[in-house]
Amino acid sequence: MIHKAQMNVMDTSLTFSKRTASTAPVQNEDARWIALSRVKGLGCVSFKKLAAHFVDPTKAFSATAPELMAVPELDHSVIDGLLSFSEWEAVAEEIRRAERAGAKIVTFLDANYPAPLRMIADPPPLLYVKGELGAKDEKAVAVVGSRSASDYGRRVARDLCRGLVSLGFTVVSGMARGIDGVAHETALSAGGRTIAVLGSGVDLVYPPDHAKLYRHISENGAVISELPIGTRPLAYHFPARNRLISGLSLGVVVVEATEKSGSLITAALALEQGREVFAVPGEVGSSRSRGAHRLIRQGAKLVESVDDIVEEIAPQLLSRRGDALKQARRLPENASDGVRKIFGLLQERPLQIDEVIEASGFTSPKVLEILLELELQGYLRQLPGKRYITE
Amino acid sequence: MIHKAQMNVMDTSLTFSKRTASTAPVQNEDARWIALSRVKGLGCVSFKKLAAHFVDPTKAFSATAPELMAVPELDHSVIDGLLSFSEWEAVAEEIRRAERAGAKIVTFLDANYPAPLRMIADPPPLLYVKGELGAKDEKAVAVVGSRSASDYGRRVARDLCRGLVSLGFTVVSGMARGIDGVAHETALSAGGRTIAVLGSGVDLVYPPDHAKLYRHISENGAVISELPIGTRPLAYHFPARNRLISGLSLGVVVVEATEKSGSLITAALALEQGREVFAVPGEVGSSRSRGAHRLIRQGAKLVESVDDIVEEIAPQLLSRRGDALKQARRLPENASDGVRKIFGLLQERPLQIDEVIEASGFTSPKVLEILLELELQGYLRQLPGKRYITE
Repeated sequence: MIHKAQMNVMDTSLTFSKRTASTAPVQNEDARWIALSRVKGLGCVSFKKLAAHFVDPTKAFSATAPELMAVPELDHSVIDGLLSFSEWEAVAEEIRRAERAGAKIVTFLDANYPAPLRMIADPPPLLYVKGELGAKDEKAVAVVGSRSASDYGRRVARDLCRGLVSLGFTVVSGMARGIDGVAHETALSAGGRTIAVLGSGVDLVYPPDHAKLYRHISENGAVISELPIGTRPLAYHFPARNRLISGLSLGVVVVEATEKSGSLITAALALEQGREVFAVPGEVGSSRSRGAHRLIRQGAKLVESVDDIVEEIAPQLLSRRGDALKQARRLPENASDGVRKIFGLLQERPLQIDEVIEASGFTSPKVLEILLELELQGYLRQLPGKRYITE
Repeated sequence: MIHKAQMNVMDTSLTFSKRTASTAPVQNEDARWIALSRVKGLGCVSFKKLAAHFVDPTKAFSATAPELMAVPELDHSVIDGLLSFSEWEAVAEEIRRAERAGAKIVTFLDANYPAPLRMIADPPPLLYVKGELGAKDEKAVAVVGSRSASDYGRRVARDLCRGLVSLGFTVVSGMARGIDGVAHETALSAGGRTIAVLGSGVDLVYPPDHAKLYRHISENGAVISELPIGTRPLAYHFPARNRLISGLSLGVVVVEATEKSGSLITAALALEQGREVFAVPGEVGSSRSRGAHRLIRQGAKLVESVDDIVEEIAPQLLSRRGDALKQARRLPENASDGVRKIFGLLQERPLQIDEVIEASGFTSPKVLEILLELELQGYLRQLPGKRYITE
């Protein structure tokens, strides 16, 4: 059996080499990743075990049975599935379909694979991507909500997304009707980046009236999916899709949600993944706000403005990226006058945001942006009571 | 000096005895309490120290200087004020004014003085009461909010107060325009009890258009104040008044509040007094909901319905009164079928409220009422996760 599995890999490599000689090495690589996502019994959790063990999990295809059995807690059915995998023709066809659909395949080990997604318990082996993912998308916030949003919900979603974009955040959502659509549209019209995570193949536009939005997102961000090209948007795909929305983001903002909304699943997954959960309040008696209110009662942060979001996730951003940058305590020579002014104020004594706004004479968004940047770059840190101090 | 103070008391007693011979002993008593509230330098915190030391704090008037100096942490200015107090004629006049206004004087040691108020750090020595205070008012919740309430705020206040009354709660508020007025009106029209705490003398109706409401409250509850008869409703009285609103209540519900609303002071005092704070959400962008949203962000419980209030305060009610009643674990013979059914269900296994509703087939208010009563009587207690179990 071991021999057979190894032979399969070799056979497939040869097949690919013959069929598309010019891009053969890339296809070999992609083929193994696609194959990983198709091995019987191998889900994303087992995949993560392989990744943890082999670093390059596609090495599982050339591993012997004893080598696979050495992977901690790997299920026997997965080992069988790996050793007997033979659907290389289907894999090759999948690669051709992705090409025809204009979708890139971004694998777990690619530089463009979103770093926050690598850290979740069940990361997809690969993403199909229409558009581009980049390092700046690590600073992302998800904005999700009801398909049947009210004018109120749409207005709040717009305000929040505009604010997020103005602070350099990528807006992540699910491209559904209602709040999701508003989130993407606003991010784009505000000149920002946005990522749509689909519950179907990345080639399928659903709902169909979002065709134009779909094109715009793929031109100014990315439409992504872990599902094979052509997968229909069936209901049971969406909970799994939602873990990607939260996994890509520092926090999830639920704008309007009924008590049975999928947004609540996204929020629950966000908590499991250690992401912040935010919810927008509405009027008591509005069924569209029930879900958000329940989240707030359960501990989600009530959000009125983007400031509420930034306050909460700034420390998370800092711990993720600030440490490496902490050494430099003198501002770089090209720091703006605004940055110098605020840094100077905080060198004198710790101040709360309101006090910085008053002392600097700058607008609230400007102060927030500067504080966030200084914090990210390790020049500031927060004390209890939301006071900032220079490092 | 000691002699002088003692003489004053005696003089006053004699004066009272002459003037209104039939009620002389009561007036003597009241006179000392009113005098306590007028001693220079003696605030409610010092008063509590006297109460803790003498049990009957009016004994301070017959105490010697060394005896007063033995009261822990009592300020010297208070001792001077007590020893030199001589305004007994003004006190007698105050008693006459209260009589003319039809206001009872309820002192700290009276059975009708609200027990929860005795426990705060700065209880008033006495209350002027139009109407009646009773033991059932210990199960009280305050509902307060903006003077310029929206239709939305009024609607929610009405719904909550109706629910509170249906569960036997007394509704406490400040008789101001807006939410306060709606709270009192709704409690009355639902056939419940309500207490209005004024920031003026109990004889003054403010705002004047609440004259009818004032009368109805004093007939079906109580209008109360700690301020002398005739005191104008000046702004600086209201923060002190607010501590009585929260002090009388198990929890304070803030329905609508701007960021500068006095309701936020009431909420802050409630927290200091160990009372629960609840806030009703509204739409982002509505200035009337800003204050409530801030409270929620700071930890107040978001309230959609009376169930949310009861869930939170039931354990408090239990710890206050249930202990003494805990022994009896067999239901009394006159227990209703409904009570028996729910008790029976919970004897089998711990259940959440929703599960009790489903298993019993009763309506949610009925189940809540029965659970609350069983809990108060010590037959049930709550486990983590809002599950109930029989004792």
